Amino acid sequence: MAKHKFRELRRSYGFDEVAIVPGDITINPDQTNIDFKVEDFTFSTPILASAMDAVTDVNMAILLSKRGGLGVLNLEGVQTRYDNPQEVLAEIARASDAEVTTLLQKVYSAPIKEKLIGERIQAIKKGGAVCAVSVTPANTKRFAPITAEAKADIFVVQSTVTTAKHISKSYRGLIFPELHKSIPMPVIVGNCVSYSACLEIMRTGISAVLVGVGPGAACTTRQVLGVGVPQVTATMDCTAARDEYQRESGRYVPIITDGGFRNGGDLCKAFVAGADAVMIGSIFAQAKEAPGLGYHWGMSHPHPALPRGTRIKVGTTGTLEQILFGPTSVTDGSQNLVGALRTALGVCGARNIREMHKVEVVIAPAITTEGKSWQMSQASP
Amino acid sequence: MAKHKFRELRRSYGFDEVAIVPGDITINPDQTNIDFKVEDFTFSTPILASAMDAVTDVNMAILLSKRGGLGVLNLEGVQTRYDNPQEVLAEIARASDAEVTTLLQKVYSAPIKEKLIGERIQAIKKGGAVCAVSVTPANTKRFAPITAEAKADIFVVQSTVTTAKHISKSYRGLIFPELHKSIPMPVIVGNCVSYSACLEIMRTGISAVLVGVGPGAACTTRQVLGVGVPQVTATMDCTAARDEYQRESGRYVPIITDGGFRNGGDLCKAFVAGADAVMIGSIFAQAKEAPGLGYHWGMSHPHPALPRGTRIKVGTTGTLEQILFGPTSVTDGSQNLVGALRTALGVCGARNIREMHKVEVVIAPAITTEGKSWQMSQASP
Amino acid sequence: MAKHKFRELRRSYGFDEVAIVPGDITINPDQTNIDFKVEDFTFSTPILASAMDAVTDVNMAILLSKRGGLGVLNLEGVQTRYDNPQEVLAEIARASDAEVTTLLQKVYSAPIKEKLIGERIQAIKKGGAVCAVSVTPANTKRFAPITAEAKADIFVVQSTVTTAKHISKSYRGLIFPELHKSIPMPVIVGNCVSYSACLEIMRTGISAVLVGVGPGAACTTRQVLGVGVPQVTATMDCTAARDEYQRESGRYVPIITDGGFRNGGDLCKAFVAGADAVMIGSIFAQAKEAPGLGYHWGMSHPHPALPRGTRIKVGTTGTLEQILFGPTSVTDGSQNLVGALRTALGVCGARNIREMHKVEVVIAPAITTEGKSWQMSQASP
Amino acid sequence: MAKHKFRELRRSYGFDEVAIVPGDITINPDQTNIDFKVEDFTFSTPILASAMDAVTDVNMAILLSKRGGLGVLNLEGVQTRYDNPQEVLAEIARASDAEVTTLLQKVYSAPIKEKLIGERIQAIKKGGAVCAVSVTPANTKRFAPITAEAKADIFVVQSTVTTAKHISKSYRGLIFPELHKSIPMPVIVGNCVSYSACLEIMRTGISAVLVGVGPGAACTTRQVLGVGVPQVTATMDCTAARDEYQRESGRYVPIITDGGFRNGGDLCKAFVAGADAVMIGSIFAQAKEAPGLGYHWGMSHPHPALPRGTRIKVGTTGTLEQILFGPTSVTDGSQNLVGALRTALGVCGARNIREMHKVEVVIAPAITTEGKSWQMSQASP
Repeated sequence: MAKHKFRELRRSYGFDEVAIVPGDITINPDQTNIDFKVEDFTFSTPILASAMDAVTDVNMAILLSKRGGLGVLNLEGVQTRYDNPQEVLAEIARASDAEVTTLLQKVYSAPIKEKLIGERIQAIKKGGAVCAVSVTPANTKRFAPITAEAKADIFVVQSTVTTAKHISKSYRGLIFPELHKSIPMPVIVGNCVSYSACLEIMRTGISAVLVGVGPGAACTTRQVLGVGVPQVTATMDCTAARDEYQRESGRYVPIITDGGFRNGGDLCKAFVAGADAVMIGSIFAQAKEAPGLGYHWGMSHPHPALPRGTRIKVGTTGTLEQILFGPTSVTDGSQNLVGALRTALGVCGARNIREMHKVEVVIAPAITTEGKSWQMSQASP
Repeated sequence: MAKHKFRELRRSYGFDEVAIVPGDITINPDQTNIDFKVEDFTFSTPILASAMDAVTDVNMAILLSKRGGLGVLNLEGVQTRYDNPQEVLAEIARASDAEVTTLLQKVYSAPIKEKLIGERIQAIKKGGAVCAVSVTPANTKRFAPITAEAKADIFVVQSTVTTAKHISKSYRGLIFPELHKSIPMPVIVGNCVSYSACLEIMRTGISAVLVGVGPGAACTTRQVLGVGVPQVTATMDCTAARDEYQRESGRYVPIITDGGFRNGGDLCKAFVAGADAVMIGSIFAQAKEAPGLGYHWGMSHPHPALPRGTRIKVGTTGTLEQILFGPTSVTDGSQNLVGALRTALGVCGARNIREMHKVEVVIAPAITTEGKSWQMSQASP
Repeated sequence: MAKHKFRELRRSYGFDEVAIVPGDITINPDQTNIDFKVEDFTFSTPILASAMDAVTDVNMAILLSKRGGLGVLNLEGVQTRYDNPQEVLAEIARASDAEVTTLLQKVYSAPIKEKLIGERIQAIKKGGAVCAVSVTPANTKRFAPITAEAKADIFVVQSTVTTAKHISKSYRGLIFPELHKSIPMPVIVGNCVSYSACLEIMRTGISAVLVGVGPGAACTTRQVLGVGVPQVTATMDCTAARDEYQRESGRYVPIITDGGFRNGGDLCKAFVAGADAVMIGSIFAQAKEAPGLGYHWGMSHPHPALPRGTRIKVGTTGTLEQILFGPTSVTDGSQNLVGALRTALGVCGARNIREMHKVEVVIAPAITTEGKSWQMSQASP
Repeated sequence: MAKHKFRELRRSYGFDEVAIVPGDITINPDQTNIDFKVEDFTFSTPILASAMDAVTDVNMAILLSKRGGLGVLNLEGVQTRYDNPQEVLAEIARASDAEVTTLLQKVYSAPIKEKLIGERIQAIKKGGAVCAVSVTPANTKRFAPITAEAKADIFVVQSTVTTAKHISKSYRGLIFPELHKSIPMPVIVGNCVSYSACLEIMRTGISAVLVGVGPGAACTTRQVLGVGVPQVTATMDCTAARDEYQRESGRYVPIITDGGFRNGGDLCKAFVAGADAVMIGSIFAQAKEAPGLGYHWGMSHPHPALPRGTRIKVGTTGTLEQILFGPTSVTDGSQNLVGALRTALGVCGARNIREMHKVEVVIAPAITTEGKSWQMSQASP
């Protein structure tokens, strides 16, 4: 029988499948530095809030900025389609599971009002916060000038998958070097997951990259399209591109791992995988101050013909302050994320995020298979 | 102690275990071409409906053909055993789980009426559809002439495992080159899962190959016989045979991945694994127009002595139109399969199916272990 | 930091993790030969019934022998401790889960009556059956002469782990070459799971080897001791020892895979892994004729200080005839085992068991992760 | 496209994923020697009880010492914060799941009373037991002299992760060689999980090392911090450090695997992985004599800002005597641990713990996937 070479597949890893190996020295958490920089901005909390309607509104953006982080306002969501978005958000929270997808499709078919874009940006600025806003590639040329005029600080171009080159009949693909020159602020682009796509995006001159396709709690891209790379591997590959790009250009373009976090452990793993910052959705949707009122849904969920998401009930578990800095009485790692990160740096002997990138991570069975299965295995006797 | 070489086993992969890596460029979905060709037939929708009684009857074959796909009518099921198959199908739908296997064994022990073969084919042709019919190897010599006379368009020879050579005492094994010469239409043969078996079948001159043993939702072949190869590996191995056969013969024999699909993501993965088209059972059984009335069962389920299947309740979730093209309000990927496929080509930067074959796929944990487990892990607090 | 070589672990496989790859030719099941030979005995059904009290009594041994298989009577169970074992078996079946372990410990503390050994053997012989009996190594010297005198046909020495050499203060270890010379019948020894232990046992001159530590449904050896090797790997390693021993001695010592079977698929996989026959417990305990009355428990369950087993309710699903040869209306593969085996040989193109040993097996995800999860993934919409 | 080397990750293993391969010879359990030595102390039972408040109090330390093992009293728990710790323990047992974390945070905010340190140690010594006590690194300099004065026998320095060098602003890091010289008793240090960290600790001259980060039943370190290595790999890596250190220094520093044990099987696997002794929490918390009254919680659970643990209900299943030596009527391996260990040595042909270190272990699917899934797979018919 004829022989052939089988197609070899590479193994990829998500948060559940890895564990961080502690270091040979330890450092007191208060001695660690977790600063995150994008161009001239420095954030003392390396955590962004997702550009999702259940997570970031004007108020959350201000609150998070005050605590050293960065909220990103979605310019294509309810905040720019409705003068009074709270009403709409309350309606979404009240809808039953059976009717919510149809409702979301209707809510997001209302037109975007350009005047609201300026108003929201100014409200954030007035709150004393760094203002970051997000648009999809197709709307970038239209909204970028409005955004610049309203004096936003950081411009995010984001869709499920964004590449340096897009082929389309209906509109001329977005040229990032042109965009970059046309607006006077840092541009963050995403999402991507592979080494080569990330490298190509960095070569367009943008300021930071969002990493993650398909991992979020409210996202069903992997079910619907089969597309996605688990976050640990995606982050490792894109940080390899960051390091290669720094070798060729001398410029360090930070990586922001976006999506799929359920607790401080996941967050710490992203940093060990190479992230400079993380972008969080579901966990922030649990905050008392979150606009989602205890619910969360993805921004590709309302797609009119091919929805890719679910509305999930996340509940309201604590204040933004508690989620970021504690104190907490929950023991599942969903609060005091900054405390967890500093403690992890401490037990790994990492003085800062760059040193955290060099810490070892091993493939490990999900924690449910050891220890935690106690109650199950002991239930019967 | 004596040393010995351990027998090494190769790892195989199913849909759940892989994910598609997006590309370095992206393409608008409306710029993609997903045509599928078998000899002189071109289908604008590269999707076949299974030759199963809960999936394809005359009506479904006509409806699917009008939408660019191809339904395959089983010539050994209720359609050719009963003048009025609807009655029988209704009886199966009404049966309890406890009695259904015995009922199916009885239903399928009724003799096949040769005159019904011609009638069903003509009804499909009268509906303006491309007519494909399926028989098992043992009945091929008997039914092929009737089929040809009734002017069916495509002849499918299908059983759990079909090979180029079958050893039997009771009948002379089917010789595909002879069959191929004796009937004036393309012959599709299946199922197979390995490189060498697929290559041998292609060398007999047939027109396309069905790939898949044991993966279907209504099939228990792997439990009963232990036989089967997960679909991603099976498709990759058989497409390797296709490429090898093209090198040796210059002829391109398309691969149709058959069975195991639960959503658009699975379907997209099959194409990345190398499929030219897919054959779908369970998802089509969910169509309002499906003959199974919300149920589905495998064609080896009614085996008199060794049943290998289960009747499953799939429910009725939408029209065939919605399943193929949307719009949809379900978010689990079981509708708008064509939209999902075009979108996946788009984010992978593939202009057509052949370019989709070159896209990277990685081994990834099942989506339930990341993100989607949110509700579970958050249930208690 | 100093480098070190990590200790490498070998991966082992159980039935759930592999699947059989169909062949390049196929054979009609009625053309296959599945004979199993031990010395001068030939069995047309290569299946043994376990030496467990819920599985084999005099009646089952006779019934199975008539159908071409072989039942093994445990000489240290209730059959030789009680004149009327049915009463005891009924009491075990009636006991609650809470009290059953204590009851079993009491039941098995009754002394073995030597006269009953002869009576049981003679009853089996009177039924026209081949008579096989099983004892533990510690009792072998005492019971072997009685067994020989009663004219049993095959002598089985079996414990959780049996090796060619045992170190003990309380009794002189069993010397198999001596045993072999002292009794005029084939000796089967088990259980073992590794290449080297199996090779050592074969070199003592015994007639066949039982393979399997820890896999059985009623066995908790892996929980209690951590000891055990999954059956596919255990069978492959021991059959490698069989082939090595044949090279060095010219003698072919058959391998009997013992334990862990839940359906025909598992059984077929054991043969592809190299087994010449299989020994079945739980599935036979489901027979109408089984002495366990719908229950099953392991023979190390009643250990006075360290019980290693559970009583499980297996139910009564059909006659021994149906379990072996069908016809059946269950679709989970637990009946018509011989039909399943012949069909598997057929689709693999294997004319006999020796050819089945050369068939390819791949590592595959458990069937629950593909196809079969339909109901779960579709439950909500 | 540019190529890059992907970051490779090493696979690690927990108890659930491995199985012990039996040996080529077997030994009667009563012929095995399982002694464990730390400096001049020899323990006939190589099992320590965790320094956790639900596990070890004065009474348990005395009882365990009489049975050949060693209980370690936590000097920073309720025993040294409260004159009457029983009251506090009863209150914890009565608290609801919702309020217990807050209660624990309050209970552990009471100050440690230095006079109670001496009293507890003297009570243990008065009971005729070897007295081991545990403190965290930050309190070591303060409590070590008190401990020495009270004539404790063994001093344990333990925290989630302890390294040979700790960087802190608030206190001068603990210097183990200095500590070692300053107190006249063996010093055991932990926990660590990696080769290099373990080697560094051994080089400080300490007497034994505790291995394990994140595995315990009552510990959520892996969720909260992402940090931890499964116990089989952690033990193998640290025992490799032990062997390397012995090569360079001639001194043998025993490894104590600490945490994650649910049954005798897990315990036996730790010894095969290289452990000289094990430290047990949850299983001892099930003893009738345990101070936790059927509950168990981790010592980092009460952390004021970042709790990393859960209180679990373990129940009360038997006496300490039964848990260690049987007899038992449970079949899940949670009792007669010493019997299980001796039996495992027996079937592996190991005369003592050092020989057990050389026994082969294979990667194996969790036992739930084979055999034990019987009830589940058979539930429906």
